[in-house]
Amino acid sequence: MDADARSSKAARAATARQYQPYLEADWGFKNSWYPALFSFELKDNEIKGITIAGHEIALRRSKGRVYAIRDRCAHRGVRMSLRPTCLTDDTISCWYHGFTYNLSDGRLRTIVASPEDPLIGQLRLRTYPVAERAGIIFLFVGDEEYHPAPPLEADLPIHISDDPKPVAHLLDPEVYVRGIHRLGNSNWRLAVENGFDPGHLLIHWDNQIIAATDRNLGLGARPISDEAIKIIDEPDGPKGMMNMYNTRGYKFFGENREIGIKARGRKPYYARTSVFLPGLLLVEHWPAPAWAQYEWYVPTDDKHHEYWEVLVGHCAGEEARREADYLYEHFFEPLALKDFNDNDLFAREAMQSFYEHGGWNQENLCAFDDAAIVWRKIASRFNRGIQEPPFRRAAR
Amino acid sequence: MDADARSSKAARAATARQYQPYLEADWGFKNSWYPALFSFELKDNEIKGITIAGHEIALRRSKGRVYAIRDRCAHRGVRMSLRPTCLTDDTISCWYHGFTYNLSDGRLRTIVASPEDPLIGQLRLRTYPVAERAGIIFLFVGDEEYHPAPPLEADLPIHISDDPKPVAHLLDPEVYVRGIHRLGNSNWRLAVENGFDPGHLLIHWDNQIIAATDRNLGLGARPISDEAIKIIDEPDGPKGMMNMYNTRGYKFFGENREIGIKARGRKPYYARTSVFLPGLLLVEHWPAPAWAQYEWYVPTDDKHHEYWEVLVGHCAGEEARREADYLYEHFFEPLALKDFNDNDLFAREAMQSFYEHGGWNQENLCAFDDAAIVWRKIASRFNRGIQEPPFRRAAR
Amino acid sequence: MDADARSSKAARAATARQYQPYLEADWGFKNSWYPALFSFELKDNEIKGITIAGHEIALRRSKGRVYAIRDRCAHRGVRMSLRPTCLTDDTISCWYHGFTYNLSDGRLRTIVASPEDPLIGQLRLRTYPVAERAGIIFLFVGDEEYHPAPPLEADLPIHISDDPKPVAHLLDPEVYVRGIHRLGNSNWRLAVENGFDPGHLLIHWDNQIIAATDRNLGLGARPISDEAIKIIDEPDGPKGMMNMYNTRGYKFFGENREIGIKARGRKPYYARTSVFLPGLLLVEHWPAPAWAQYEWYVPTDDKHHEYWEVLVGHCAGEEARREADYLYEHFFEPLALKDFNDNDLFAREAMQSFYEHGGWNQENLCAFDDAAIVWRKIASRFNRGIQEPPFRRAAR
Repeated sequence: MDADARSSKAARAATARQYQPYLEADWGFKNSWYPALFSFELKDNEIKGITIAGHEIALRRSKGRVYAIRDRCAHRGVRMSLRPTCLTDDTISCWYHGFTYNLSDGRLRTIVASPEDPLIGQLRLRTYPVAERAGIIFLFVGDEEYHPAPPLEADLPIHISDDPKPVAHLLDPEVYVRGIHRLGNSNWRLAVENGFDPGHLLIHWDNQIIAATDRNLGLGARPISDEAIKIIDEPDGPKGMMNMYNTRGYKFFGENREIGIKARGRKPYYARTSVFLPGLLLVEHWPAPAWAQYEWYVPTDDKHHEYWEVLVGHCAGEEARREADYLYEHFFEPLALKDFNDNDLFAREAMQSFYEHGGWNQENLCAFDDAAIVWRKIASRFNRGIQEPPFRRAAR
Repeated sequence: MDADARSSKAARAATARQYQPYLEADWGFKNSWYPALFSFELKDNEIKGITIAGHEIALRRSKGRVYAIRDRCAHRGVRMSLRPTCLTDDTISCWYHGFTYNLSDGRLRTIVASPEDPLIGQLRLRTYPVAERAGIIFLFVGDEEYHPAPPLEADLPIHISDDPKPVAHLLDPEVYVRGIHRLGNSNWRLAVENGFDPGHLLIHWDNQIIAATDRNLGLGARPISDEAIKIIDEPDGPKGMMNMYNTRGYKFFGENREIGIKARGRKPYYARTSVFLPGLLLVEHWPAPAWAQYEWYVPTDDKHHEYWEVLVGHCAGEEARREADYLYEHFFEPLALKDFNDNDLFAREAMQSFYEHGGWNQENLCAFDDAAIVWRKIASRFNRGIQEPPFRRAAR
Repeated sequence: MDADARSSKAARAATARQYQPYLEADWGFKNSWYPALFSFELKDNEIKGITIAGHEIALRRSKGRVYAIRDRCAHRGVRMSLRPTCLTDDTISCWYHGFTYNLSDGRLRTIVASPEDPLIGQLRLRTYPVAERAGIIFLFVGDEEYHPAPPLEADLPIHISDDPKPVAHLLDPEVYVRGIHRLGNSNWRLAVENGFDPGHLLIHWDNQIIAATDRNLGLGARPISDEAIKIIDEPDGPKGMMNMYNTRGYKFFGENREIGIKARGRKPYYARTSVFLPGLLLVEHWPAPAWAQYEWYVPTDDKHHEYWEVLVGHCAGEEARREADYLYEHFFEPLALKDFNDNDLFAREAMQSFYEHGGWNQENLCAFDDAAIVWRKIASRFNRGIQEPPFRRAAR
């Protein structure tokens, strides 16, 4: 190893120490709101089991309301969602021996096969706070003793105020919300860092949406002043950062003369990106002006995340909704959420093997990765706790 | 953790100490008889390889008799059963270099490719005692130096003597024996405990066989006196326990008023269950009166077992055999061995992940699990040794 | 364990100590030439990624010449070969952010998305020496600082000089070279030892090529004098050993009377075998007189190897080439490289589980395995270094 390499390794280590908590968050940040399902995915009396940050959770909708409870029966540890069993409106029963828990507080109400059992009233499964807003079921995942849960708004993007025609916020009235979610085979942090990365345009510059709309996304952007990255630290509200592509903080590159390559497309198009804890993205005016794309990268375990892509737009009335449906189905979902973002999913998954085997200490970050470093520091500072792996928890 | 949880955890630990050997038996109990194949599965001169409790064993039938020998050639460690090679009636040869072993004592008789080799007569593969009875090939699996092997009867159910019309015993004369076996993706102990469990009726109460015969299995049963569970400790014979459903030791629940659920069916039907070392079940008068269902849960490795379901009935003469075939093929196998017991297999496999990651110390046993605790203690006391994992053995 | 077993175990351990380095070479020998691809598998401007001894390597052909470079971008660790990207003739670019490296020296030339980046000129990916000869692309794999690389000839078989009609050498002029390569699911050493094994004829004696040509390969051969195995130690040239089947050093067995088995075929056929570092085989006059079969067993990781089978023959002129194509396509490839050698691949893969779990200390070598022991000692003595596993390397 030569002197250069040694000093670069030392510099890397010094930087990494500044975001050590982030490096330890293999299983995500706990005590945070995460999307679990779209509302339409859980019909009345349906039970579904999901996993967020290693927490196995059963969701049941009863009389319209959604309840979330630990999805391992206290008796023999089977997942109750494997064979959904609803015997009353206010309980969930294990299909195996009929351990029946209150949906509201998780307490063992009865055992079908043992109605006089001394365990009744003594055992309890933990429950999770639920918020169903804008067609999405959110769960507050983390330590049971953490309370009160902060408002959902604290774990959503900010309301945009510096734009004459601001994009809609998820919780606005008269809003159109629609999207997809799917499994990503990488750690959640690789997904986040891919999301707002100002330098990954090479995987997008020739995508169908770019070609079809003659847009010019450039080849890359480099932060050249403090104006480039704005820290977001709302009191009791969202924490994160914003890539200020609309300012002179970023220098854009549309050409690389060393190797003779130019960005295609004639219409400049700056889709400003911001990222918030616990790990979600806002892209303004994308995939079309006035629309916003939200992305959540929800940790499943330390090697997988659930990739959520949701479009949010102003929308008043049936006619506007029909028009939005048309755009969503024939333009936004196929060209943006799929063709365009498929490349992002591919890139994250391609990083997994390297980062799984020590990459966090071997990567070589470059100029535009200042954004990643800022994010890592913010995440280290503002998170509400590092999620422990489930088996270590179990062994306590 | 509150005071209740602490004391329940302490109580759990105290109970668990009483059956510690059972908790260590991940790979099963050794020095025991296990079924390996049905007789019809091994034709003359056929060789098949199986695995029981981590022991890789080649079976060959020669001139009608079955021999069992370690299924790893002493030379280069390949499984001989991969390419069955029989060059003489009394040997098994490795397909690779022709190491040829006596079936009777496992000694190296010759090497096809090296007839003058000094190893000849010096090397030996261990053999296993074989008993072929009632259409089943049983092997005595465990330490080679353990001898004499106990009689097969010691590892089978008892002969029933307290019933005016007792079910047949596997080794009775004029007996009909037929069944299936298949791989189960769980540890063998989860299978045993599911087998005799007095509280798992919820997975069975609405099965096809119950609906078709209008039977009432109840919802659960709770031991309320010492009469409920009878310890079986025959001198030089079977060790195990019997759920005395036919006594007042058990209180049956046909209804759970807390959640308004009642067992279906009008005909009461108590199929008494007993369990024996090294891990097999007897269900009397099931799936129909006068029949008995035997189940073996044969450890394959620490995460799989071979699930054997065998029906045993009195049967004298060709006519009776044809009638039994009819019942077996059109009623017992599809409705009992498959539809009904598929639910048991599902339940065991659903427990595997939990128990694999510390569940033995996290379960919360309830009233009817007294039966499981008694079994664990009996198994801890009467087993003939805990099977070591194969690789640890190898490393000695 | 009895006295015999103890002394045999002690003897085995004493022998094993003599080739300890070989036992440690799970990932192969480094600083050696290995075949990577046939020339026809890499077209101009094509990029392909391969793995040899844990080294992930991208190959690109540009203006006819082949370059080899580490296939993990220094930035974020993705394999560049996943989405081949060539922006200029003398570089390779990462598809993700456009890190662009010189093919010649691996230095970072530019970053598409960050043309003014301080990393440019500072980072470097290691490159690998390439030799393209006789239609095969060879790479010198190992430590970057090892130089100069020895000539390719040093890692190829010797030129045969003791035969009145010697088989051709790969690097001879007017030579016909054609073959296949495929993945083998075993450690590379099991493949080598299978290749020259004088005792594994039982898997071949009834193969189609043997039956169709009425050849008699015998049942086995035992070294009976020092003449049997010739050590090859050319100054600055190949190191290895040759099974001198053409001398009286070997005693052939065509029959085993103990079990009454005789080799089939009437025409004696001694295909002399030799083996060379880092792990390749030469079989003379096989699959037909005047032809030579080369086999490389290239370590992929510690559990897989790439199995190369290449036929080499004298061949002058178009007519001879057409005739060779005819023989290759309709005789050599289907009957020798596939039907015959499929058995070898099967045998190696059958050994993997045993050797992976301690088999190196549990095998029982016999008379003809003297050849294996000589090879292990030669390999221990002459190798240019034991390849470290990639993740241990990464953790330094």
